[in-house]
Amino acid sequence: MSLQGTRVAIVATHGFEEAELSSPREAMQAQGIEVDIVAPEGGEIRAWAETDWGDNYTVDKTIDEVSEADYDALMLPGGHFNPDVLRTNEKVLTFVRSFFAAHKPVGAICHAPWILINAGVVEGRNMTSVPSISQDLKNAGAKWEDKEVIVDSGFVTSRTPKDLEAFNAKLVEEISEGKHRKQHA
Amino acid sequence: MSLQGTRVAIVATHGFEEAELSSPREAMQAQGIEVDIVAPEGGEIRAWAETDWGDNYTVDKTIDEVSEADYDALMLPGGHFNPDVLRTNEKVLTFVRSFFAAHKPVGAICHAPWILINAGVVEGRNMTSVPSISQDLKNAGAKWEDKEVIVDSGFVTSRTPKDLEAFNAKLVEEISEGKHRKQHA
Repeated sequence: MSLQGTRVAIVATHGFEEAELSSPREAMQAQGIEVDIVAPEGGEIRAWAETDWGDNYTVDKTIDEVSEADYDALMLPGGHFNPDVLRTNEKVLTFVRSFFAAHKPVGAICHAPWILINAGVVEGRNMTSVPSISQDLKNAGAKWEDKEVIVDSGFVTSRTPKDLEAFNAKLVEEISEGKHRKQHA
Repeated sequence: MSLQGTRVAIVATHGFEEAELSSPREAMQAQGIEVDIVAPEGGEIRAWAETDWGDNYTVDKTIDEVSEADYDALMLPGGHFNPDVLRTNEKVLTFVRSFFAAHKPVGAICHAPWILINAGVVEGRNMTSVPSISQDLKNAGAKWEDKEVIVDSGFVTSRTPKDLEAFNAKLVEEISEGKHRKQHA
């Protein structure tokens, strides 16, 4: 199965957890998927690698240059800093919400679901996250469970980098299935 | 006015925002208040200083060694890592909740109110925080406003290190007033 011609946006900024971007990107590219790193500003963004700053990653497109129509799916890596910044960026929130509204697959791992709280898309959804933010997700109306990966109609979530193998497999599976009727904003 | 004999606990762990601990501690000590740094484990905790790791700070007491009865008030610094860890520590949450239940003054700044969400003490309270977590506080029932400092019956909150002068002044004022009947868990 080749997913040649399929395009996925990864939205991130400084302080994203390195493995949570590099590992899903590699897994998607291995299936022939074209992956763009989309950030609020162009140039490079700096990773966080577990306990300290990590490598720089090249931004492929800025948020001003893209729309949901350009991509078949969306993936959001975590980190402590990255989602804390992105959840206050209205252009990012509009972009993220549009994938849910268009019934397209979305993956989010670790602290990334904070962005989804501000995008207003978690109410009633089955999902997981790093346990420290579970109360925030429950308070936003999510049906939260402590599992390595949860799939809810094209919406794929995992807890931490330890879950990446399971996360990547389900993410690619949901992307290969295309739009999901019950995926919604 | 001297507050000699008054004791305040600062609860923190690795990755607290350095100025948000050092500045209120200095302001309280200048009034004769005795301040203890209380952490989940003994030894030293490492500060975060704006953009990178900062200095180490000596832990005065571990959470196992203290109870609310030992102190007249509580102060919680922010940071990205510190509250994300403390909000999952049941001993910390019990300790924090007990100050609200005992009508004692509590100060919290920046990302520290995440701890208060998990402690279950923000519902109906007038407060502020770093704007990025405002939605989490509103979803937990807080009456959130974007102000440099908000005082609600002994409960003092501010947004960021830029607000420290106003935060420190109100924190010391509320501590000098002692217990507040309407402060509650």
